[in-house]
Amino acid sequence: MAVYTHVDPDDLAALVARYAIGTVVSCKGIAEGVENSNFLLETTDGRFILTLYEKRVQAGDLPFFVDLLGHLADHGCPVPAMIRDRDGEAIQRISGRAACIIQFLPGISPSHPMPSQCEAVGAALGAMHRAAASFPGGRENSMGHRHWRAIAEATGDLDAVISGLQDLVDAELAFLDAHWPGDLPAHVIHADLFPDNVLMLGDRVTGLIDFYFAASDFRAYDLAVTHASWTFSDDGRHCDPARAQALMRGYAREIALTDAEVAALPLLARGAALRFLLTRAHDWVHTPADALVTRKDPAPLLARLRRYQAHDAAALFAV
Amino acid sequence: MAVYTHVDPDDLAALVARYAIGTVVSCKGIAEGVENSNFLLETTDGRFILTLYEKRVQAGDLPFFVDLLGHLADHGCPVPAMIRDRDGEAIQRISGRAACIIQFLPGISPSHPMPSQCEAVGAALGAMHRAAASFPGGRENSMGHRHWRAIAEATGDLDAVISGLQDLVDAELAFLDAHWPGDLPAHVIHADLFPDNVLMLGDRVTGLIDFYFAASDFRAYDLAVTHASWTFSDDGRHCDPARAQALMRGYAREIALTDAEVAALPLLARGAALRFLLTRAHDWVHTPADALVTRKDPAPLLARLRRYQAHDAAALFAV
Repeated sequence: MAVYTHVDPDDLAALVARYAIGTVVSCKGIAEGVENSNFLLETTDGRFILTLYEKRVQAGDLPFFVDLLGHLADHGCPVPAMIRDRDGEAIQRISGRAACIIQFLPGISPSHPMPSQCEAVGAALGAMHRAAASFPGGRENSMGHRHWRAIAEATGDLDAVISGLQDLVDAELAFLDAHWPGDLPAHVIHADLFPDNVLMLGDRVTGLIDFYFAASDFRAYDLAVTHASWTFSDDGRHCDPARAQALMRGYAREIALTDAEVAALPLLARGAALRFLLTRAHDWVHTPADALVTRKDPAPLLARLRRYQAHDAAALFAV
Repeated sequence: MAVYTHVDPDDLAALVARYAIGTVVSCKGIAEGVENSNFLLETTDGRFILTLYEKRVQAGDLPFFVDLLGHLADHGCPVPAMIRDRDGEAIQRISGRAACIIQFLPGISPSHPMPSQCEAVGAALGAMHRAAASFPGGRENSMGHRHWRAIAEATGDLDAVISGLQDLVDAELAFLDAHWPGDLPAHVIHADLFPDNVLMLGDRVTGLIDFYFAASDFRAYDLAVTHASWTFSDDGRHCDPARAQALMRGYAREIALTDAEVAALPLLARGAALRFLLTRAHDWVHTPADALVTRKDPAPLLARLRRYQAHDAAALFAV
């Protein structure tokens, strides 16, 4: 949850006046997005999200996100495209922050996805990948495989988070370094498609949101992240075969994975579990217990990692 | 800002199904209200606020608020009335909390009210008082004059908040106890009508919100609270005569104050400034600096108190 910056009503009216979206009716800070301040803005023409970019999203990256979301929206993906003002500008300034007015998407994030919802998100991810493949831009994945060792080192004492975690992470990093594939199909991916970044109405995906970790990486790694975050019990111990098969079936409707991708999925999923295990461990150590942002327990990601390490993990990716 | 409690989408759908308000389209936690969790709920029929009551608002007080806001709304006041479900119930339970679905009101809280906005809020306050006078319910004002000494004592070391504050508060409490009027016109009042509890579109008041401090007290004290919060510079040192006159003029359009009320206004305003000075000092001492809720500086209220103590304070209330 996050509203870090106040917006003056007069400044807001001036900002909205740059656009052909009517005049302000209401503007409420919303508890969505961890890194930015977000407001649900209603005008006489409709609803929009106003995002003020705080720290982690650098202003220099904003044109990439504007172009990416515009490209995906133009290709029919339900993503929150930045609106352009009358001069064609999407990136503004208000309250001393870079800011965008963004398309509002209906829907609610599922808490406990049903198999039918997993199938829909698999298909939406696949359709998004087909559109992303023709996007000309690219961006280093600062949360990708090459950076995991540095994140582990920046965390400090991993054993203080979970006893025995340091040895486990060291061994896993060595294994992944030795086996990480070099040549799978790649383009810009979402890289963080957890259920709270998907909006749904029933079984229909109405929004793929929060692209601020989007970067260039293997498309199959994106599928692995989605697998790790949609198909497990809350404690991470059990992968639900019905949800996993549904996710894979939905994705397969849009994308025919290569044999090399299929073979790599268990490994990529180990990487996905490790990536979120490491960043949660990092935030666990570095976020005060009573801070504005809720810390997420790393343990369920460790449980997923162990499941993906098992000799029969390939079966979790059967269509 | 506050969203303390998560709402499961299935539970939300079941709750909304009790009402004749369509089906859920979107539900986003909003950073409004300090004591409760609030969500902006959109259905196929319109927009609503979903409030989950956390700690300070006791479930036992909820029927009072439901009745009060229903009465005020029925009398044409722009207040957020609780919606009743198909069985006539306004108070529900979700996520282990008492909860209400509440009418959505457009508008934005002014940051720096213009005189024309002060006049509008004065008139809206007066109209609300005319409606409240016929409301049969009542409620002890736990933040009223009789309770200020206990709040001061519960704060602890007032001098740690502002040097010299303990002596000043002791003297002011003694003065107010000696002079507080006993027989002014009274009924249920808002008691906290700061600008962030008023929604406006331009010069039009579209919402009087957050009635959770509403209680039985002098109507002129409510006007004094509004005077203290709408007519001063941010630092509390200067009362703007144009804003103050406009506020009084707007109120006078709806309510003809008695001579005793007019005479008491400077004293009531000293009480209003002291009340918010004390509760801010209390929260300053008892809220961790990095907690979810932003602490508000008590100093600007002390500056207002000093201004209302001045021999010429009566002039601030001229119409």
